Amino acid sequence: MQQQVITELKRLVGAQYVMDQLEDRICYSFDATFRDFPPDVVVKPGNVAEIAAIVKLAGRYNVPITARGAATGLSGGAVPVKGGISLVLTRLNKIIDIDTANRVAVVETGVITQDFVNAVTQAGLFYPPDPASAKTSTIGGNIAECAGGPRGVKYGITRDYVLGMEVVLPDGSVVELGNKFDSEMAGPDWGMLLVGSEGTLGIITKIYLKLVDKPSAKQTLLAVFTSLDDAARTVSEMIASGTIPTTLEIMDNLTICAVEDYLKVGLPVSAEAILLIEVDGSTKAIVKQAEHVIKVCRQCGATEIQTASTPEDIDKLWQARRAISPACGKINPTKISEDATVPRSQIPAMVRRLREIAQKYNLKMVIFGHAGDGNLHPNILSNKHDHEEMERVEQAVAELFKVALELGGTLSGEHGIGYMKAPFLQWETGETGFAAGKTIKKVIDPQGILNPGKLFNA
Amino acid sequence: MQQQVITELKRLVGAQYVMDQLEDRICYSFDATFRDFPPDVVVKPGNVAEIAAIVKLAGRYNVPITARGAATGLSGGAVPVKGGISLVLTRLNKIIDIDTANRVAVVETGVITQDFVNAVTQAGLFYPPDPASAKTSTIGGNIAECAGGPRGVKYGITRDYVLGMEVVLPDGSVVELGNKFDSEMAGPDWGMLLVGSEGTLGIITKIYLKLVDKPSAKQTLLAVFTSLDDAARTVSEMIASGTIPTTLEIMDNLTICAVEDYLKVGLPVSAEAILLIEVDGSTKAIVKQAEHVIKVCRQCGATEIQTASTPEDIDKLWQARRAISPACGKINPTKISEDATVPRSQIPAMVRRLREIAQKYNLKMVIFGHAGDGNLHPNILSNKHDHEEMERVEQAVAELFKVALELGGTLSGEHGIGYMKAPFLQWETGETGFAAGKTIKKVIDPQGILNPGKLFNA
Ligand SMILES: Cc1cc2nc3c(=O)[nH]c(=O)nc-3n(C[C@H](O)[C@H](O)[C@H](O)COP(=O)(O)OP(=O)(O)OC[C@H]3O[C@@H](n4cnc5c(N)ncnc54)[C@H](O)[C@@H]3O)c2cc1C
Ligand SMILES: Cc1cc2nc3c(=O)[nH]c(=O)nc-3n(C[C@H](O)[C@H](O)[C@H](O)COP(=O)(O)OP(=O)(O)OC[C@H]3O[C@@H](n4cnc5c(N)ncnc54)[C@H](O)[C@@H]3O)c2cc1C
Repeated sequence: MQQQVITELKRLVGAQYVMDQLEDRICYSFDATFRDFPPDVVVKPGNVAEIAAIVKLAGRYNVPITARGAATGLSGGAVPVKGGISLVLTRLNKIIDIDTANRVAVVETGVITQDFVNAVTQAGLFYPPDPASAKTSTIGGNIAECAGGPRGVKYGITRDYVLGMEVVLPDGSVVELGNKFDSEMAGPDWGMLLVGSEGTLGIITKIYLKLVDKPSAKQTLLAVFTSLDDAARTVSEMIASGTIPTTLEIMDNLTICAVEDYLKVGLPVSAEAILLIEVDGSTKAIVKQAEHVIKVCRQCGATEIQTASTPEDIDKLWQARRAISPACGKINPTKISEDATVPRSQIPAMVRRLREIAQKYNLKMVIFGHAGDGNLHPNILSNKHDHEEMERVEQAVAELFKVALELGGTLSGEHGIGYMKAPFLQWETGETGFAAGKTIKKVIDPQGILNPGKLFNA
Repeated sequence: MQQQVITELKRLVGAQYVMDQLEDRICYSFDATFRDFPPDVVVKPGNVAEIAAIVKLAGRYNVPITARGAATGLSGGAVPVKGGISLVLTRLNKIIDIDTANRVAVVETGVITQDFVNAVTQAGLFYPPDPASAKTSTIGGNIAECAGGPRGVKYGITRDYVLGMEVVLPDGSVVELGNKFDSEMAGPDWGMLLVGSEGTLGIITKIYLKLVDKPSAKQTLLAVFTSLDDAARTVSEMIASGTIPTTLEIMDNLTICAVEDYLKVGLPVSAEAILLIEVDGSTKAIVKQAEHVIKVCRQCGATEIQTASTPEDIDKLWQARRAISPACGKINPTKISEDATVPRSQIPAMVRRLREIAQKYNLKMVIFGHAGDGNLHPNILSNKHDHEEMERVEQAVAELFKVALELGGTLSGEHGIGYMKAPFLQWETGETGFAAGKTIKKVIDPQGILNPGKLFNA
């Protein structure tokens, strides 16, 4: 990259917010995936005007820009595969307004998800999306990936809470898309173009989010199964029976063992699967719901059911779920985390096919995820320095995508496409759908400066 | 239009589905707005392949195509202002699947909304969007306008139930956008581009819709107010107090009188306003909710509150709401129905400003609408043959749009932009937002053959 760009960047945002030393660049070369590419320069703008100026500058010099929130992405979105500018958005971290009368919040893109959730809770309302990475991830990253989470089963995903936003388009112009209020706006909801766009269509700077009522009570249940098939069947039966729990998480035996080994909290290591189920609502309603959940679990073959109602007990049950990532990391250094998703009625079939794939390629695969959403997280535990193994991983991943699509599902339930799944995208969209995506990308970003190498620009 | 086009159309879909006689063309020249433009030819295709072929043909001859569902639109979307082909979609009227296990329905675009709602109810589930025109409108028209309805307060609008769709793009290619299942798809949710696109970006042929649980019980309340201000304040207080009723409809005195004159059911004609409020949920929950609703209404000055719990009594209360349109039609022949929408906290201010506008321009204005959504329907009752009056109407309409935007609202809560509000669109989107809309339209439909004269192509 030309030195001139760096000089101008320093002039734009102040020299202390521009870093081009190798050690800095390396710190911004990776995210939660397993490949890394250093940017040529790291820039930390402080406001929308600076971002607009940076985008214009990048256009003038034809330099790629990769937006970066907290870099917890699991498909490689924040990795600057073509170098250029890593645009770090964490200084835009103000919660501008929590408007309880209209149930709308206005936040800057770099606000940490959990900080926002806490502020909303304090104001007496509820923001349901709950990616497991909430303590680290940014709201902007959540929008750009359309993050999901356990509560998606009942409450939907990030997309369902986005009312509108302020965006810097690839030509450096600043637009408001959507509407601050939860009423329809004129014409299509262009804001939805940005949800899930992974930094390829614009830089989100400010977001209007919808808030909802806080449920007054909740109860958590842990159901133990001697057969993974039974657990999977419980998920589809539960949904079909008309009870939508708040969360419906599955963990298979390998996951249970990994977590137990890591936490030592007495998880049932001989179980083939457990389901972690939460219900919420009024105090009365949850009693009825919990009874129903227990009935369905028993009918489908649960051998043991624990329940928790106090915050401490609930937290204990969730501890196991939260520990999955670090626990798996302890087993093998490289965790290839997929999130191929299928219709909920296909969960049993998907689980069976995943196990067949793991066997066929002789790989260690843990299966867990937001089963109530059809969103499984098959994670392959491997070692990126073992090239022979990594080849088998690649074949297995391609096969699991094929199976998910065959069963009517999608490549990504929530983690996005990034560089990792871009080669497979056309399998899902079909030829004309793929061409449509490419065209829209091209018209909005004709130079292709925003996050090249990802999604429809790969 | 060239005779050749008509000959080819007849070959494509069969002569009995192509009409070019003046009397036929006149029948397809209008919708529920007040201007009419005859198409050159009316075509009723029977399937997606025929639609794709028609679109390609239109591209070849550069002939405009205006999609038409049931033509109940209130912003003129289905009116072929530039002539060309009126593409009538009512033959695509199959309910393809109601998948209760995955809570997804698959329908063709021309299915009548109420027929679909009935089929879903029969299957034990619930499709909440409920435009007052449901007995006539098509699902495709609902998607293209992003229709709302009374239940939007609690359940959201059409957009919230669209999972994906099959679309014929302006170049005649057929794409699937979004996903049949309620899980995230790869990349942005392109399907959202079509929701609210008013026939300007593609022809929707098949739709995947999300279904939800049927509430087990409901209760309807009618609260009478001697002050319109008090009624408006009740709306914002109710939402702020944390109770979200299913519906929260307002009717002002002129509306009450018009309906009473039409129906003779004993409405309180001396009241300045009534609120029609419905709560739903479990049998127990609605009792608590209704108590709360009554409390807030009383606190805000309601002088009388009626409640209804049996289907017959509930229907009687709703009869008044449903009769508004025909009742107003009886007073004056031309009903200019606007749906400028404001944040819910601004309802009292908006109501005051609307009354000032009516007075200033000496016009008969009834105010009713989905107040709980901030969505008011100021209707100006006039006579389109009285040119002097129509000029005042035009000024009043422009002023009411200005006020809505000033209060943080939008030009359209649900009726769309069409030809009627296109001249005002830029007030809402701003310059760059407007340019963005125009650009996207241009890239998707470079020839501008889909519904010219509407929305961003006006
Ligand atoms: C342990 C762990 C658990 C996780 N659990 C979940 C989970 O439950 N559900 C889930 O959905 N995900 C989960 N993730 C994935 C990840 O946390 C989410 O995708 C999250 O939304 C990313 O946020 P971020 O701020 O880290 O974004 P980054 O990783 O920094 O960026 C992600 C993408 O968004 C783009 N981007 C970031 N900010 C902007 C902006 N302002 N404008 C435009 N583009 C932008 C980037 O260019 C990149 O393409 C998990 C990750 C980890 C490591
Ligand atoms: C008495 C009355 C009450 C009403 N109440 C409500 C209400 O409560 N809420 C509300 O939101 N609206 C209401 N409306 C307005 C209207 O009914 C809605 O906008 C409805 O969605 C229009 O459906 P339609 O099938 O009649 O569409 P049309 O009027 O035929 O078309 C509307 C627009 O959609 C386009 N279109 C239609 N089908 C397709 C397709 N398959 N693909 C692409 N574009 C297509 C057309 O080109 C046009 O631009 C009401 C109207 C009346 C007359």
